[in-house]
Amino acid sequence: MPTTTSASALAESLLTRFRLVRSATMALVGPLTPEDLMVQSTPEASPVKWHLAHTTWFFETFILRDFLPHYKPFHPDFLWLFNSYYNSLGDMPEKKLRASFSRPPLDQILAYRIHVDAAVEQLLATTVDDEPIRRMALGFEHEQQHQELIATDIKHALFTNPLHPAYKEAPEQKGIAPALTFTTYAPENGLVQIGVTPDPNSPEAFAFDNETPQHTVFLRPFALADRLVTCAEYLAFMNDNAYTRPELWLSEGWTTLRNEGWQAPLYWTRDQASPTGWKIYTLHGFEPLPEQDGLAETPVCHLSFFEADAFARWKGCRLPTEFEWEYAATQSPIPAASNFIETEALHPTPATTTQLFGDTWEWTASPYTGYPGYKPLPGALGEYNGKFMSSQIILRGGSCVTPATHIRSTYRNFFPPSTRWQFSGLRLAKEV
Amino acid sequence: MPTTTSASALAESLLTRFRLVRSATMALVGPLTPEDLMVQSTPEASPVKWHLAHTTWFFETFILRDFLPHYKPFHPDFLWLFNSYYNSLGDMPEKKLRASFSRPPLDQILAYRIHVDAAVEQLLATTVDDEPIRRMALGFEHEQQHQELIATDIKHALFTNPLHPAYKEAPEQKGIAPALTFTTYAPENGLVQIGVTPDPNSPEAFAFDNETPQHTVFLRPFALADRLVTCAEYLAFMNDNAYTRPELWLSEGWTTLRNEGWQAPLYWTRDQASPTGWKIYTLHGFEPLPEQDGLAETPVCHLSFFEADAFARWKGCRLPTEFEWEYAATQSPIPAASNFIETEALHPTPATTTQLFGDTWEWTASPYTGYPGYKPLPGALGEYNGKFMSSQIILRGGSCVTPATHIRSTYRNFFPPSTRWQFSGLRLAKEV
Amino acid sequence: MPTTTSASALAESLLTRFRLVRSATMALVGPLTPEDLMVQSTPEASPVKWHLAHTTWFFETFILRDFLPHYKPFHPDFLWLFNSYYNSLGDMPEKKLRASFSRPPLDQILAYRIHVDAAVEQLLATTVDDEPIRRMALGFEHEQQHQELIATDIKHALFTNPLHPAYKEAPEQKGIAPALTFTTYAPENGLVQIGVTPDPNSPEAFAFDNETPQHTVFLRPFALADRLVTCAEYLAFMNDNAYTRPELWLSEGWTTLRNEGWQAPLYWTRDQASPTGWKIYTLHGFEPLPEQDGLAETPVCHLSFFEADAFARWKGCRLPTEFEWEYAATQSPIPAASNFIETEALHPTPATTTQLFGDTWEWTASPYTGYPGYKPLPGALGEYNGKFMSSQIILRGGSCVTPATHIRSTYRNFFPPSTRWQFSGLRLAKEV
Amino acid sequence: MPTTTSASALAESLLTRFRLVRSATMALVGPLTPEDLMVQSTPEASPVKWHLAHTTWFFETFILRDFLPHYKPFHPDFLWLFNSYYNSLGDMPEKKLRASFSRPPLDQILAYRIHVDAAVEQLLATTVDDEPIRRMALGFEHEQQHQELIATDIKHALFTNPLHPAYKEAPEQKGIAPALTFTTYAPENGLVQIGVTPDPNSPEAFAFDNETPQHTVFLRPFALADRLVTCAEYLAFMNDNAYTRPELWLSEGWTTLRNEGWQAPLYWTRDQASPTGWKIYTLHGFEPLPEQDGLAETPVCHLSFFEADAFARWKGCRLPTEFEWEYAATQSPIPAASNFIETEALHPTPATTTQLFGDTWEWTASPYTGYPGYKPLPGALGEYNGKFMSSQIILRGGSCVTPATHIRSTYRNFFPPSTRWQFSGLRLAKEV
Repeated sequence: MPTTTSASALAESLLTRFRLVRSATMALVGPLTPEDLMVQSTPEASPVKWHLAHTTWFFETFILRDFLPHYKPFHPDFLWLFNSYYNSLGDMPEKKLRASFSRPPLDQILAYRIHVDAAVEQLLATTVDDEPIRRMALGFEHEQQHQELIATDIKHALFTNPLHPAYKEAPEQKGIAPALTFTTYAPENGLVQIGVTPDPNSPEAFAFDNETPQHTVFLRPFALADRLVTCAEYLAFMNDNAYTRPELWLSEGWTTLRNEGWQAPLYWTRDQASPTGWKIYTLHGFEPLPEQDGLAETPVCHLSFFEADAFARWKGCRLPTEFEWEYAATQSPIPAASNFIETEALHPTPATTTQLFGDTWEWTASPYTGYPGYKPLPGALGEYNGKFMSSQIILRGGSCVTPATHIRSTYRNFFPPSTRWQFSGLRLAKEV
Repeated sequence: MPTTTSASALAESLLTRFRLVRSATMALVGPLTPEDLMVQSTPEASPVKWHLAHTTWFFETFILRDFLPHYKPFHPDFLWLFNSYYNSLGDMPEKKLRASFSRPPLDQILAYRIHVDAAVEQLLATTVDDEPIRRMALGFEHEQQHQELIATDIKHALFTNPLHPAYKEAPEQKGIAPALTFTTYAPENGLVQIGVTPDPNSPEAFAFDNETPQHTVFLRPFALADRLVTCAEYLAFMNDNAYTRPELWLSEGWTTLRNEGWQAPLYWTRDQASPTGWKIYTLHGFEPLPEQDGLAETPVCHLSFFEADAFARWKGCRLPTEFEWEYAATQSPIPAASNFIETEALHPTPATTTQLFGDTWEWTASPYTGYPGYKPLPGALGEYNGKFMSSQIILRGGSCVTPATHIRSTYRNFFPPSTRWQFSGLRLAKEV
Repeated sequence: MPTTTSASALAESLLTRFRLVRSATMALVGPLTPEDLMVQSTPEASPVKWHLAHTTWFFETFILRDFLPHYKPFHPDFLWLFNSYYNSLGDMPEKKLRASFSRPPLDQILAYRIHVDAAVEQLLATTVDDEPIRRMALGFEHEQQHQELIATDIKHALFTNPLHPAYKEAPEQKGIAPALTFTTYAPENGLVQIGVTPDPNSPEAFAFDNETPQHTVFLRPFALADRLVTCAEYLAFMNDNAYTRPELWLSEGWTTLRNEGWQAPLYWTRDQASPTGWKIYTLHGFEPLPEQDGLAETPVCHLSFFEADAFARWKGCRLPTEFEWEYAATQSPIPAASNFIETEALHPTPATTTQLFGDTWEWTASPYTGYPGYKPLPGALGEYNGKFMSSQIILRGGSCVTPATHIRSTYRNFFPPSTRWQFSGLRLAKEV
Repeated sequence: MPTTTSASALAESLLTRFRLVRSATMALVGPLTPEDLMVQSTPEASPVKWHLAHTTWFFETFILRDFLPHYKPFHPDFLWLFNSYYNSLGDMPEKKLRASFSRPPLDQILAYRIHVDAAVEQLLATTVDDEPIRRMALGFEHEQQHQELIATDIKHALFTNPLHPAYKEAPEQKGIAPALTFTTYAPENGLVQIGVTPDPNSPEAFAFDNETPQHTVFLRPFALADRLVTCAEYLAFMNDNAYTRPELWLSEGWTTLRNEGWQAPLYWTRDQASPTGWKIYTLHGFEPLPEQDGLAETPVCHLSFFEADAFARWKGCRLPTEFEWEYAATQSPIPAASNFIETEALHPTPATTTQLFGDTWEWTASPYTGYPGYKPLPGALGEYNGKFMSSQIILRGGSCVTPATHIRSTYRNFFPPSTRWQFSGLRLAKEV
């Protein structure tokens, strides 16, 4: 347990961070109507209204119920109603029914947020112990993950709407991508330290359990591209008939592509009026894809792992492993000008050499598994990460809708390889 | 065309009816939140918000665009946006996407209703010709059909919600069902007149095209039950293990029952606290099913055709044909005390001998086909009925959520045999 | 019970018929390999090997077990193993698993046929009573139905095989279809007698329960085409873009067409070398479809009800009801030159005015229901017809693979409206 | 290229091996009927007849067509007809249609084998170069893989048959599993060499491309169980309600378990007559599972990865990585008494400490990916392994139906995590 003084400072900093995180969520909802908050347009997504309640439920369930004496839950049904996937907490509504959640109504959800916020503030006003601090830190990260999901889910919802409305206007981003170059990395003796082992004396220093423990990995020298792959490059791949050439694809990717009828990344839509024949839906609405400039220079995103992998093969390269990526990323700090959700660009900006973080998640070649010695958190929170360690792929680096304080070089995002509704792109790697 | 005087009286009566129909729709929405109006909980249903727009679209598309000079459509996209199934009118949104209709927002839908209402009033203020009158009459019936759908769709939506809220309170209905008796009918020479041939001089006298033309049918004498089958009787069928005995079922019904896991009518839910082990969800919320009295005495509803057919077989009876039903129904007028949507009971009332109309739709033994000499309306309106004449079954008599002025003895409702979300029950028939 | 003399004559005639029917089945198998008999290429079909066993099982189960004293069943497992859909007889293998029936091996199935044949001969050598005679008659018709299924199932199996082998060579049929003409029928007083009421004194005079009882139907005058629709006519319908015009189709048909990707009848295959762009697979192998002569003049077949219905609508006509068809068919006997399975043409011959029977089954406009007063047979045999009386459509007249002695004017065949693997075509009707 | 002398010896040894491999395939078919060879009882499996042709096709396509001058292919259609998944070779029949392969008939397939065998012998009689030798070696391994598949596919086919026949009798195996103990492994400096780099001078020394190149991996010390998990242990897991406790399962495993209705390993069947309530289908037919002795002592098999993983979690252990397994396996040679297909036990024998090879494949914790520097073979053969490197899991060690000469410590088998029709079990690992 921290000393009284530092505890007080810590509580204050926790309080500040809590308010920032919670208000950031509400700010995202600003441009939306109450009806928009009801839409669930793909099974992968959830209605925004549900995100508002579920992030609140997280603080109530894992912090207030356990650590605030005499806490009175807002509503007895909410414990199971806004449970997402914690089987140990008992029954939960089928995910596909989330769109039926007209009741409780939005104003009750907002009252729920206020109720829980007040109780958390009350908790932070008293001396807090390590475990609630750890869980507060987890709650912040959890809500930030859902902020990113709100952005990606509402993008899909508005795109699905037959009117294709924009979420928000944004200033146009100009810029030309530099030529594609690579940097070689050769770790000493081949040995690198991957992941992080939490300091038990800093409960507020957060890492997800799947980033732990720190461990040694042997790496051969490798070359990593200095920038992300652009839309123009991806278009060349498409125009080389890539979507009809099985030899470029993993077998599972080829099957998926044919079953789903993929001919381009998600949100690319045919448009005869566009010089390239394509327009792209962004959170600012549809924009034509030019042959160069504008969107053509921005990092391609909303790719599945299969598309990223096929592009790399077509290019005579490969995807980096998550260890190669992490080794490269730990060489320098996150650039201040990175394009995260706070910049409000809400789309990748033209490719540069400083986009290892932000702009788009980067698919790696690494399947999602536990690190050597990995142990899930005890209890229901143990279901956060560990139980998803099959048939998913690691993505690294965050995107243009990731909160800036949420990302770090050891952060491991993961999705099934056919996932496309996230801002997911790629960076090339190759042997040296 | 009517004479000027009668035309004026007719226009006034059309106007009155128009206002009544339109306001009746809005009255149904009263107890609901804007979010409730977004829910589509089964593919058969539509969001209430969509019903509000689509019924308006019908007047705009088939009357205002064709007959009101200089009519300015409310919004250019609405022509295709709120098209339901009229293929000749061009592309329409996939039905499964209706729940994504967060945009246009509710207030725009309400403005759309006001805009169209005003234009229709303007049209009715001028001399109207036969064809617009015919279409007005069709528009009324169309909107009344959607009123019934609003009631059945919102029932499903609220039932699907994990909180199972009630739509509206209602006074309890008391009564004991009389003993089951039959009346024998023996048409003279076996010949009866079925359906109706429209009078070209009374464009306002409405019948759907599928009720036409009137024609002769040969009927053998038959016996028809004097009341509907009750929940208590249906429970006895269930308790005789009917849902596990294939010999009681049509082959397609048995397959459906097993695929769907049916063990009871829709909305019947297991409840250990209930004396019969069952509670039933109604628009007033859940109510326990007692062994007698209360719900036990009410006509069973939310049956598929397969369940109605199996019950009749178990009882040593059969379902009546639609011709038998119509012949019986034309013997006397619709009782004034019938339980339609205007009574606001919103559920069948205890079984009596006067429920041939209202309370529940009655499954017949008749597949839905065109009458001899049947001709669909010309143009897009020809898609209203005719194209559904396969694999559906006729229901007769209206239900507790049918508007009173919408039903008549020649009215032919139709649904696929596995349909259960309508208030559908049965009346027994047998040979004499 | 018949007198001794006539009983003896009857037994002898039953024996003759039994031998003819049983050997006709085996003759069908001649051109096939043991491996061909294993194939089940669509869920609607069964392996030929299974047909051989199941028709045998029918005699064993419904005749030998009930009526031959001391009959020793061939194998205890066969009672359930070769049950098709008689739920009252207990568990049966899933239909989809029929293709796994490598065991019992073919030679055991053949031994089963011999064992049962011998026992039936023994039974017929003793005085037989009415009920076994009735069942023998049913057994004959049952086996004849399966002969037709063997032909249609093996056609599908060989077509599905990537090598598309022919079942059997056949002489080419030449002929030009006559012009399309109609005959008007106007029953006296509009009343006709439909179906048949069995004579209890002639147990061997067979009719399926679904043809009974004879009853009165009121018919308006109607016109019926004098010949079947030809491939050339159907090609004109296709070339008029019929498969892309929703207004021509029933709603369910349009959905089916799009889900299944139909662009032509079953067995029509694109072929650039053919003058029309199409070739057609027949039991003689593939043949090009010319613009006229040859296949172009033959009745189109392997249509779904939806295609037959759409063609009739396109032509400004309609399908006849089954009552209209039966009334027309009872005016004259079945032509001796009709094209049934015995002619070994195995495909429709060029259209003529004498094809009311044979060549192709004719889709009617009538859904399959029970006649007024219909009663299924008692016991398991009651599952033969009655339980299929939903969502199916009546076909009349038999096809080129129907045995000649199996068909009659009252015969009601029935299939779901999307069925295409039978030799199913159409004859036009219209109002007068 | 080898010298003439050694080339001659090599050709002779290749010839000997060729004959052994080819005759071993035919020996497997001995107990089966021609009809058994047609069955495809699960999409994962293929008919045995197809395996006979496809293994032959492999030699014809990759060796004879490329290297035997003037080789005359047996049949022009066979190139595409028996292609399995080599997209670069053009169209191939849909896998689901393999069961329709009644033509070409079995005798033609057998003639195909003879034709190709003769041509290969002719090729080996002449001086052969490196590349054909490499492909011969690949052809041997390929055919051995299909020998294993023949055993697993026919097991599934016979189990699916409602009569559940045995493939072959086998002597009972007696033995009691030793107590569960672990051995600790601690590689020097943590560095181990994994995989193999082929010697270009020994083209006959075979390794699949996915075993290459040899590379360094860093391993922490670990403990590996000295024997496989037994049926008795697995039954204890089941009896601890493991199949109803989500906390024991990966999320994807829990979903799979519920969708598939798994309650036990594949081939375990409820049997009230058995002391444990279970019997197990083996290639010798059904055998009851006793509480101890007999099957209870044998390694559990036909587990999915999810079941293996859940069992390990329940036991407080984990699965080994493929690197841990390989490191342990390279410490000692393959025991001579290992239970491979040649022992004809056709089922795992009672658990001992010498079963690292044979008996059952062992699920590892490692997803299937390419080794650092991995390069697929050039051309169509490059599709052999690399394109499956997503969403699959590595298994190691071979099973009781793996040919003895087919397995080695670097061998990497791989299947999707839900696969159960292979002889797949597990060995526990844990941290030290």
